[in-house]
Amino acid sequence: MEIIKGGVTAAKGFRAAAAAAGIKYQDRKDMAMIVSEVPAVSAGTFTSNVVKAAPVQWDRKVVSEETCARAVVINAGIANACTGAEGLGYCRETAGEVERQLQIPKNQVLVASTGVIGKQLPIERLKAGIDAMIPNLSDSMESGHEAALAIMTTDTKEKEVAVTFQVGGKVATLGGMSKGSGMIHPNMCTMLAFLTTDVAISKEMLAEALKEDIKDTFNMISVDGDTSTNDTVLLLANGMAENPVITEKNEDYASFREALHYVNETLAKKMAGDGEGATALFETKVIHADTKEHARILAKSVICSSLTKAAIFGHDANWGRILCALGYSGVDFDPEAIELYFQSKSGKILIYRDGLGTDYSEEEATRILSDPEVTVLVDMKMGQEAAAAWGCDLTYDYVKINADYRS
Amino acid sequence: MEIIKGGVTAAKGFRAAAAAAGIKYQDRKDMAMIVSEVPAVSAGTFTSNVVKAAPVQWDRKVVSEETCARAVVINAGIANACTGAEGLGYCRETAGEVERQLQIPKNQVLVASTGVIGKQLPIERLKAGIDAMIPNLSDSMESGHEAALAIMTTDTKEKEVAVTFQVGGKVATLGGMSKGSGMIHPNMCTMLAFLTTDVAISKEMLAEALKEDIKDTFNMISVDGDTSTNDTVLLLANGMAENPVITEKNEDYASFREALHYVNETLAKKMAGDGEGATALFETKVIHADTKEHARILAKSVICSSLTKAAIFGHDANWGRILCALGYSGVDFDPEAIELYFQSKSGKILIYRDGLGTDYSEEEATRILSDPEVTVLVDMKMGQEAAAAWGCDLTYDYVKINADYRS
Repeated sequence: MEIIKGGVTAAKGFRAAAAAAGIKYQDRKDMAMIVSEVPAVSAGTFTSNVVKAAPVQWDRKVVSEETCARAVVINAGIANACTGAEGLGYCRETAGEVERQLQIPKNQVLVASTGVIGKQLPIERLKAGIDAMIPNLSDSMESGHEAALAIMTTDTKEKEVAVTFQVGGKVATLGGMSKGSGMIHPNMCTMLAFLTTDVAISKEMLAEALKEDIKDTFNMISVDGDTSTNDTVLLLANGMAENPVITEKNEDYASFREALHYVNETLAKKMAGDGEGATALFETKVIHADTKEHARILAKSVICSSLTKAAIFGHDANWGRILCALGYSGVDFDPEAIELYFQSKSGKILIYRDGLGTDYSEEEATRILSDPEVTVLVDMKMGQEAAAAWGCDLTYDYVKINADYRS
Repeated sequence: MEIIKGGVTAAKGFRAAAAAAGIKYQDRKDMAMIVSEVPAVSAGTFTSNVVKAAPVQWDRKVVSEETCARAVVINAGIANACTGAEGLGYCRETAGEVERQLQIPKNQVLVASTGVIGKQLPIERLKAGIDAMIPNLSDSMESGHEAALAIMTTDTKEKEVAVTFQVGGKVATLGGMSKGSGMIHPNMCTMLAFLTTDVAISKEMLAEALKEDIKDTFNMISVDGDTSTNDTVLLLANGMAENPVITEKNEDYASFREALHYVNETLAKKMAGDGEGATALFETKVIHADTKEHARILAKSVICSSLTKAAIFGHDANWGRILCALGYSGVDFDPEAIELYFQSKSGKILIYRDGLGTDYSEEEATRILSDPEVTVLVDMKMGQEAAAAWGCDLTYDYVKINADYRS
């Protein structure tokens, strides 16, 4: 596997464009579009929230009922959630506009929205946006980048990644982009992420690969504990790498899985590090747990703790809060047996062992915690399973952004 | 039932005192003590956190193994959690000091601590604090009040309440005090609360009453989602009201339950409203749910949502976040069937119905949300069960308090 520059246009046969449709923001692009030259098999995972946004309802149908997908239309600013029959109608109209312009059947068009809940989309502006994007669709790296910028809301950085990998004697490519900054606590699935690959793979294997991988990537991040109504990961595979079609869990599948994992983990960490108001990416690694599921639960409990997140913001080695968060996670363990470390590029220190804080240097701890990427390492001493979770610190700016998001 | 002034000294035969022991804070009292003139039956509920502070371990033993309890010693500033055998030894020494001075057997002395995790208690100061308090033990309202002040940490207000109630032809009294401002997300039990009553009741009935009532009171509040290592509710009943001893769920039990519920709910709401950095008490009432447990889960999900809490701070009628929090609670429902209202002393407005936002006035909504006590009313339209939960808004000051709590 090799990491390359690019995003959703990195794989063969994928074009993208962006437009300023004036949906909510001024002076910036707020719509993006991805089109595959040829029909692609699709996989998707969606929010587990009972309240599902209209685009989630639309896409679930497309992914489950159609054999292929060709295009994705995305808007930022309005989430099209809690918008009733009118909102669902706008998904159909959006897809219809693509059908009219590109002769792609509307049931092969995916849609995604992010932004405020409960407002209706200005559908005429959306359609005008599609009309403006179509002549600009391009497979250039730049067009993929513009798409990544256009789907941002409170994000401060665009999020893109791409890799190549060997499969059946061919080189295939997988690229992706995502957005997500607040209302981030994916459960079963996540925020908006769009992945494109030219690998040839069956729909079943594609779905299996995505389902397996998100457990350790998108489902292991949290910004604020709020599972959105719009969480969506879409993965399109158009087969243009011309490898023998992957239809079973063979070596080629493993190669694709490795690429997918890298792309998903990279996007997931970028989202966590760019959480609303964040000044640091906060990672928790749990090792030597008795089961994989316990490792995941413990890691996620720490990165979700408001008190721990505030301490990270303050560069304060308040390890009692970490132990507290492990303790209320629901996983049973012996607090006297485990060890805690703080770790960053500035160093690594043992902070807790045998039921007591160690005689660590507060100065050194503060230096480690002042880095923009901070890791808490938890050694459970129980078994062989490990997991990581990613979050961010809790800051004044998180409160500021969310106390008055709508205006 | 009648609401009266007072707290832990309201019931017959309970004395209290406070002292400045210099455990962490300067220029304030940081220890309190409650003593019953006669042996009292005791009930307690404690944190479900796997990491249990030393005083929790000590008290669990006293409450479960001893037939009665006589005294409680409390300190603020250091939690005596994650302190190993040394920390547990300090509980024994604390109780031993009371035994030495008051001839109360040390296994009838309860202890409680709140503050920073991982530091050892200065036991000599603690013992000196006990020696200073003993001559001042008094059943005056003022001494109960001083105890309520002494147990505060980041609390901004003391929390006391008392009621009288009729039982078996006698008037009995129940009073209590509590503290709790951060690391508040009780599970099975809660932060520090101390309840004293002169009712005559069996240990079994006392435990049953407490266990039942906390489900709808202390367990329905959250400040930050962090379940503490020290959560403790202690209830002492010394029988001095001279009513026929309550040994079954009769009319007298119902009368006591009513009093207990009022006291617990009042203390719970005071804690939520005085959550770290809070400017408002944020209540969510769920009505017409299909089961009681679903009503509780839904109500608690809303008051725990960081995004909703930030919106309450901003007086922003961002109802989409409320719907979102109901949706990820784990309870299944039809989002198109439910109704949402905002409510406060300034009025009540319908904000969501039939899957859509109503045509409400933003100005009116902002006025309602600007009150210091704000209620979200959720009508599930599914059945006859109801529940309420209490939290607070998420503010800059929450971050400020917790980014640098230790220094």
